[in-house]
Parts: sequence; structure tokens; C-alpha cells
Amino acid sequence: MQTPRPPPEDLDKGPGHASIAQEALRVLLVQMGLREAPRRVGGGEPRTEGSGSGMGSERAKEKPWLLLCHALCFSLLKASAHTVELNDMFGQIQSPGYPDSYPSDSEVTWNITVPEGFRIKLYFMHFNLESSYLCEYDYVKVETEDQVLATFCGRETTDTEQTPGQEVVLSPGSFMSVTFRSDFSNEERYTGFDAHYMAVDVDECKEREDEELSCDHYCHNYIGGYYCSCRFGYILHTDNRTCRVECSDNLFTQRTGLITSPDYPNPYPKSSECLYNIELEEGFMVSLQFEDIFDIEDHPEVPCPYDYIKIKAGAKVLGPFCGEKAPEPISTQSHSVQILFRSDNSGENRGWRLSYRAAGNECPELQPPVHGKIEPLQATYSFKDQVLISCDTGYKVLKVQGLPG
Amino acid sequence: MQTPRPPPEDLDKGPGHASIAQEALRVLLVQMGLREAPRRVGGGEPRTEGSGSGMGSERAKEKPWLLLCHALCFSLLKASAHTVELNDMFGQIQSPGYPDSYPSDSEVTWNITVPEGFRIKLYFMHFNLESSYLCEYDYVKVETEDQVLATFCGRETTDTEQTPGQEVVLSPGSFMSVTFRSDFSNEERYTGFDAHYMAVDVDECKEREDEELSCDHYCHNYIGGYYCSCRFGYILHTDNRTCRVECSDNLFTQRTGLITSPDYPNPYPKSSECLYNIELEEGFMVSLQFEDIFDIEDHPEVPCPYDYIKIKAGAKVLGPFCGEKAPEPISTQSHSVQILFRSDNSGENRGWRLSYRAAGNECPELQPPVHGKIEPLQATYSFKDQVLISCDTGYKVLKVQGLPG
Repeated sequence: MQTPRPPPEDLDKGPGHASIAQEALRVLLVQMGLREAPRRVGGGEPRTEGSGSGMGSERAKEKPWLLLCHALCFSLLKASAHTVELNDMFGQIQSPGYPDSYPSDSEVTWNITVPEGFRIKLYFMHFNLESSYLCEYDYVKVETEDQVLATFCGRETTDTEQTPGQEVVLSPGSFMSVTFRSDFSNEERYTGFDAHYMAVDVDECKEREDEELSCDHYCHNYIGGYYCSCRFGYILHTDNRTCRVECSDNLFTQRTGLITSPDYPNPYPKSSECLYNIELEEGFMVSLQFEDIFDIEDHPEVPCPYDYIKIKAGAKVLGPFCGEKAPEPISTQSHSVQILFRSDNSGENRGWRLSYRAAGNECPELQPPVHGKIEPLQATYSFKDQVLISCDTGYKVLKVQGLPG
Repeated sequence: MQTPRPPPEDLDKGPGHASIAQEALRVLLVQMGLREAPRRVGGGEPRTEGSGSGMGSERAKEKPWLLLCHALCFSLLKASAHTVELNDMFGQIQSPGYPDSYPSDSEVTWNITVPEGFRIKLYFMHFNLESSYLCEYDYVKVETEDQVLATFCGRETTDTEQTPGQEVVLSPGSFMSVTFRSDFSNEERYTGFDAHYMAVDVDECKEREDEELSCDHYCHNYIGGYYCSCRFGYILHTDNRTCRVECSDNLFTQRTGLITSPDYPNPYPKSSECLYNIELEEGFMVSLQFEDIFDIEDHPEVPCPYDYIKIKAGAKVLGPFCGEKAPEPISTQSHSVQILFRSDNSGENRGWRLSYRAAGNECPELQPPVHGKIEPLQATYSFKDQVLISCDTGYKVLKVQGLPG
């Protein structure tokens, strides 16, 4: 049985209160160049509200008296401005002094950072701030690095001001910043706010719409990330995303045959390199005939930059071929042909099918011997044709001449 | 931009295969008392299939020759039995040799353990096992410590056998064990299975039905746990679950007054200890009158074990009071009364309301002086009554006698 964890520490009670004064002192010392600026937990630029831009230690060496005055005035004005870095997976944020009313002229920023693969969900259980036109006096502002997600103030939503109510603010990424600000005069006593945040898992399998990043076959979401896997018979490519096939070891030794891209006529696998070897005895010549359905990813300007077929016949290389128009029939003039088919990591194309035929070289003209005959009797003979030479009765074969070995 | 993580390592290829033989050797050595049994990662009893019960090193000392024979036979029979401990938040499980067909006479158990606050989700992307009546030959069995969650075999679901199909197996707790077993003869070649598991967060806020464990006011689920918080004006008790109020500092000094339990007539807060002090000058006597609506959690046999009122008046202690019947009117005979109201961490009761009245002690009989009068003229006077004594014209007051100071 699991019991609830202690709730996250109230950041603005007890030690939190003390640190407002400490923060003001620290800001002052930093501005005077007497102390190092704090390093932000988790990397990134130090971010301290209340430290004016360009107020670094270099300028401090130039005009220390001006700086001291400026720093003092600034610090008195913004005595309560401070920043809290939060890196936990959940927590609670409350206005200073909560549940007592918040002080005037206060500013606190909470920077919430969760690991990549998570978003931040923020919602309010209590909200009671001074109302002002467009929240220009007191407000709670929720932001990312470059976008304001929400600005809240008041006690109830009006035409121009919004309270959070039951609303949940969800960060698009793994960072969210919440700023509370009160102006110089709080005539009524406002009790502030009580907010809670937590990391929520991003379901990359549902949200990835970019084909370049989503899984080719199966996507498995887990808390904090995702991974891809492939259908039976496929192998995950080293890009961890596309599914290739093992197709580099195809040998054809028959005189005729059919060769297709993998899964034809379904789209061929991505990230694959297929090799088809047609190997016949010397004396044959292979010709290739592509079928009409021919569909290999191409490009309008660059020739076959993604997927292609290349054909190597003896010393000749044909191709690359791609697009939707099948190549013309090819007489390779070779008994040994290698067909290389390569696909990249994107695209859905149906592939190709070809039939090949190996014809033997033509033999020199063949005449039946005197007092004999040749069976079968043909106009021409080619490599590997077999003939039966027989003699008329009373004669015998002395020498076979002019027939291929 | 986030790219997919490399998928979890295939546990039954490469090193996994080698370890089957290593495991058999290790089991043999353990049974012979020549090697220590492995300690299970994450605590608990070592669990090695193939080691017979009662085959510890003590018995090894008794009859080593018998043990050696037994161990050898057993090891040969169960050469492939081994156990894999998985402690990651996600991963992949495949039959031995996947995607090639699995070997005969093989047994592998994967023990998946995730942190508390999570469950384990298991599903199959490929499943192809020998079918047998009630899966008695080859099977995949999914279990917890004490419960079989599913048994799968075959290639398609029948009346007596079940394949996982799209089914997702969810563990009730944070442990799941998956066992694959093949029998001695696989005449056909079965390609086995490809399964994936991942930790899923338990939403304790939705699933906690036990009042003793759920949050009194607000529940906040986060990945891996939950915490409670309270409505504005309440304080979370140190039990991290119930919401109490601060009510120990109530002082009543008027002669009459109304006192109620917090939030009356709404249910009073849990885990609270309220103290109401009625303090009047010595000479007064406080009487208490409870109203009809009176509702304090009670018990049919034990007197007021949970919530109660106790009243301390001088040296007397009255109560505890609880239940649904208001106590009779109480004359405390004291000018100083403490009412203690205590509530425990459960129950929904409406509480109580009382009115008190402080009457002064009665004064001795008072007669108007001769040649004078008392105003106002009453039958009796009590403490703190004020009278005006005036003399008839021509007389003057010499001594005030018999009036309380």
C-alpha cells in the first residue's frame, strides 16, 4: 500500500521569506561587482530580475559611485524581486505569504524545468488577486522562453481579465516560467494564489506528425521518450526509425526469371540496399524487361537522388533509374548482371518488377553432313542448343565440325 | 527536436544466447555446491529455474554422487532454463532466437520490476507459437507474485487457447513475470514472439477508493506518486492526507455567546483539536446549552473513541460527549470553562453548536434603607448587578451594608 508523499515544500513560507531579503542583498552585491552572479541550476544563462542589463562588473570598475547609487535605488524599488529555479517533477507554487495576503511591490519568478520528453501542467487551487484593466497592476503570468501562455488577475473572469478557474496551462516544451507581481498599493487584502505543477509525459507516438521523425512501422511510447520497432521480417535501421530488409544476397542462375523489389506491389521498405545477381555461364547474354508498374521515388530536378536502380553488366553501368516510367528493355550483352536497388529513409513507392531472359550467343551456320542429318533442324543455333547428328545407314561420324563445344 | 531512442537490446540474441549455456553450467555448479547461488537484483529470494527444491549445499555434503547425477540429468533436461531480471522503465522481450524459430525444450523467465507507483503494461507485436490443448506444450505465461494474468499459445485464439492479439496485459502492481516455454519437440518451425513492456503511471487520485488512504480535500497525481493539499484556510495534517484547521485559540469573555464546531453546520474538519475558552470574572457561573443539531462521530460499543467534546469547568471534567444526541444543559458552577473538541482523521459529521450564559452568584437579601430607596427594586440581586441607593430628602448615606463589593 502506498501512502501519499509529503506535499512539496511551500516555497514562500519560512525559509522562502528569509530569502527575499537575502536575494535583494545578493543582487546589490552582484551589481556592485562584489559577488559573483549565481549560476542557474541546470545550465543556461543566469537570470536575476532586478539586475539591470549591462550592469556587470566591468562597468562597476568605471563608475562605482554611480553604480552604487543606481544599485541601491533599484534594489529598494524591487526589494522583493527574485527568481526560483525548480527542477523537480512536481511541486507547489504559492504567492508570498500565502495563505496570508501578499505584500505590495513584490515580484517572484519560478522557472520550472523538467527533462526532455515531458511537458509541464500547471493549475490553480486558489486564486485571489487585485483586479485591474488588462491585469496591469497585479498578475500571474505564465510563459515559455518566447511565448506568453496566460496572464491571470482578479477574482473572477471578466471581458478584459481572466482568472485561471479550472483551466490547466500546458507548456509546449519542457520549460515554463511563472511570474507573480504585485504593485505598490494593495488597499484590499488579497490572499494570492496556490498553484500546482507536474511533469506530464509526451506521447510522441500520437503527437509526431513529422514523417521524418516518426516511426516507420511501430511506435512505442514510454514515460520520458519513445522508440520504434519493425514488423516481423524487418530490421530496424541504425537511424532507429526506419525498417529495412535484408536483401543483398539474391542469386539467379536460371535462364529466365522474375525479380521484384521487396514487398512488390506494396511499397518497398525504406533504408534498404538490395542486390540481385544474375549469373549464367559465359556464352549467354541477359536481357531485362521491366513491367509497366514502375514507381521509384524521384526528384523533379536532380536525377534519382533518393531511391534508384543501377544495373551493372560486365564493365557497363546502366542507370540510375527512378520515377514512374519503366526503363526500355535492356540487352546487357553480358552473362553476369548485378541489379542494385537502393531506398532512402522516406517515401512510399510501389517499386518495380522485371523479367529477365538469357539467350545464348548465336552459333556459326550449321549444315548437315553429307550422308547424314541434324536433329532438330533449325535455321540458326545458339549457345547450349543441342543437336543430334546421325549418319545414313552404312556411314559413320568421323569428325564433328563447326558445332559449338 | 527529439529523436527516438535506440530500442531496448534484444535480450535473446548474441550475448543472450551465450548465457543460456553459461546458466546451465552455473546451475550445475550451484547444485554441486561449488558456487554460490546468484543474488537476485533488487532483493528477494534467488530464483533459478532448474535448481530443484531442497538441493542446497547442505545436502550436497551428504550424498555428492547422487547429487551430481541428479544435477547432471536435470541440467541436461532443462539446459535452456534461465531467468532474466529487468529493472528498466521499458523494454522488449523476444523468444529465444527471434525472428528465427525458437529452439525445443527451452524455458526463459523475465522478471520485470518497476518502482512503486507504476504498473507494467505488456503487449505483443508478433506471436507465433505451437498450439496445444490448454497451452500445455508451448506457452507464454504472464504472472504476478501470486496470480496468473494470462497464458498464451498458438497462432490464433480458439475456444481453449488464446493468443494475445491486440490485448494489453496490465499488472496490478509493480512486478510482472513473463515465462516462455517450449516442449521437447517442435516439428513445425514457430517464429515465437516479440513483446514490449513499459511502466505506466498509476493515477492514485482516481484509483484510491479507500477513504483511509485518499486525500481529504485535493489530490494531485504526478508520475510515480501523489500528494494531498487543502482548501484555502485549512492546513495539511502531518499525516499528509487530512486537512485540519487552526482552532486552539478561541477566547470568549462576554456573558453570553454562541460557539460552534468549525464550518458548522457543514461537516467539521478532520484531525483537528479545537479549544474554546470562556473566561469570566470570579463570581459568575457559566451554563451551557447545546442545540438540537448535534452530530459527532461515535462508536456503538466504545465511548467516543474517535471524535468528542470534553468540558473542563474548574476542577470538574465533563464528557467525553459524542453521538447524535445533544448533552443536557450543563450548569458548570464555574466562571472559567474550557471546551475541547477533537476530531480524528476520518468521518463526515455535522458537529455542534451551543449557547452559553454566565449568571452571577445570588446576593444576600437586600432591603432598602430606612428613609431611603434602592433602584431598580428587585426581588433578588446577583453578582455585578448595580443598584442605586438614595436617601430621602434631608438624610444622607452613612454606610452601605450587605451589598456585594
